[in-house]
Amino acid sequence: MVVVLAGGVGAARFLRGLTAVVAPEDITVIVNVGDDLELHGLRICPDLDSITYWLAGLVHPEQQWGRADERFTVRDELIRLGHEPWFTLGDRDLALHVHRTALLREGMALSAVTADVTRRHGLTLRLLPVTDDRLETRIHTVDGRDLHFQQWWVGERAVPDVARVEYRGAQAARAAPGVVEAIVDADVVIVAPSNPVVSVAPITAVPAVAAALASTAARVVGVSPIVGGRVVRGMAHRLLPAVGADVDATGVAAWYGARSSGGLLDAWIVDSVDAGALPDVRALGMTASATDTLMDDPDIAAALARTVLGLGHAWPQDDRPGGPA
Amino acid sequence: MVVVLAGGVGAARFLRGLTAVVAPEDITVIVNVGDDLELHGLRICPDLDSITYWLAGLVHPEQQWGRADERFTVRDELIRLGHEPWFTLGDRDLALHVHRTALLREGMALSAVTADVTRRHGLTLRLLPVTDDRLETRIHTVDGRDLHFQQWWVGERAVPDVARVEYRGAQAARAAPGVVEAIVDADVVIVAPSNPVVSVAPITAVPAVAAALASTAARVVGVSPIVGGRVVRGMAHRLLPAVGADVDATGVAAWYGARSSGGLLDAWIVDSVDAGALPDVRALGMTASATDTLMDDPDIAAALARTVLGLGHAWPQDDRPGGPA
Repeated sequence: MVVVLAGGVGAARFLRGLTAVVAPEDITVIVNVGDDLELHGLRICPDLDSITYWLAGLVHPEQQWGRADERFTVRDELIRLGHEPWFTLGDRDLALHVHRTALLREGMALSAVTADVTRRHGLTLRLLPVTDDRLETRIHTVDGRDLHFQQWWVGERAVPDVARVEYRGAQAARAAPGVVEAIVDADVVIVAPSNPVVSVAPITAVPAVAAALASTAARVVGVSPIVGGRVVRGMAHRLLPAVGADVDATGVAAWYGARSSGGLLDAWIVDSVDAGALPDVRALGMTASATDTLMDDPDIAAALARTVLGLGHAWPQDDRPGGPA
Repeated sequence: MVVVLAGGVGAARFLRGLTAVVAPEDITVIVNVGDDLELHGLRICPDLDSITYWLAGLVHPEQQWGRADERFTVRDELIRLGHEPWFTLGDRDLALHVHRTALLREGMALSAVTADVTRRHGLTLRLLPVTDDRLETRIHTVDGRDLHFQQWWVGERAVPDVARVEYRGAQAARAAPGVVEAIVDADVVIVAPSNPVVSVAPITAVPAVAAALASTAARVVGVSPIVGGRVVRGMAHRLLPAVGADVDATGVAAWYGARSSGGLLDAWIVDSVDAGALPDVRALGMTASATDTLMDDPDIAAALARTVLGLGHAWPQDDRPGGPA
């Protein structure tokens, strides 16, 4: 069993490779919900949906999130009705939010709704929101404002400087059904190349998840989302300094920390351009390896997945070096 | 002040004429909510919306309900997600339901939401749902089923024979703020040419509304929705027999009853083709008149409105016969 801690697009691109190497039925993805928001009364789960759209082949190919062939009739009407269009919902995307919100209003837990949604999209891997409880990533700006992550990122384009990041509700949040068991029973736990501060940290901020990660016999292998000192996408470079981390592959590894020292990681994979950082990463107390991490085509993503599984001592049977040809 | 008891399309077409004769600010429309439904977690108010779309010039011109230039992307996605498409929502229409549902979830009453929606559509007449409480028209079929009106009408195309019509919740429903005052203070109350059984009767089934209609000093003037023994639109011919009424202009007048005998009407307007029925209508104890009621153009609707106001002794100042030219 392979467990992946995941945010949105970066994780989705990695999962496209992983599902080419491991049977989807053997993959459990534990997904960040700190970015989730309620808009127009609808529950929106950007990370769950990005992964679903990617794996179902529905994602907008250039944008890399949202739906291909998207339309915006509802958005235009909502603007006509006086709504601020700060967070744009396409019509196809909105249908999923309507579906999800209706099921939640009927009393179904988000994890059960997510199982329904992935099934309806023909996916056979298991997507689990880290929690069915409310967990909200808040950005406290240096000018004293307390913003929902999406307000800061989408609404204000990550311009305001960040003083502090809060995972509101995390301490009280229970892990969703299956999350702890998946981690404890895993052969390997992969930390996807997602935003460390607002994708991965909200997951590990749930106490039961942190405890399971500390106790699992599986190796925990991460992939750096920082390549050559730059974020591959997103705004981690605006957040890592606020949590005291350097914006480079070693800085993120140091922030996650080695499991041997009470941190998250047994192993860390950096991009080939950062191979020079391997001694520094190893000095943190973790295994380290360098490979191509820019997953611009599915073959590179699959090769990266093989490297991750190798470092996790969890090669799939038929891909084990020296295994059946 | 002119008060109109209204269903959807028939009332909307009449109101288009009335607003050409009376300042919209002097009109209060009390609207049926028995047809309302919750679908995909969204609150849908077909009669309120039909009137709004007509008066805002947004209605689909051939269909006569819903929005012109409508699209169905969300509907198509909901079908892909496994939903039965028995009640089709267009994208533009759906935006309004999303807006309304969000405000209701915030705790706003339907009457306040409706004021917001009409204002955003630039309307200056007052639309009032008859109640902010739950009131649901149920169709009990002869084969023993208990269906929401929309399930019977839209879902089953009004095919199942009707044993009984129930206005569920009506007895406990309070009139929405302003409804009773509008009726009591009215110069005339108009019963629009709407479906008697499922548009007008759910309104008068609210006890406070019935009491206000019984006590108002205004004359209550109705317009027949049956012309030449046929419904102008809809399925009243499937419902009138179930409540013991004949499907003709006199039959509806008799079912409403004369106010002098504890019924609803002081006066009844039939179409010119039904002029032969006037003696029978008058024999019921009400004033009666015949004129053109098929409002295929706005001028006919305006002329009908003038006739109604005349029978209600409520001519607008400038249209009073012999008044200022």
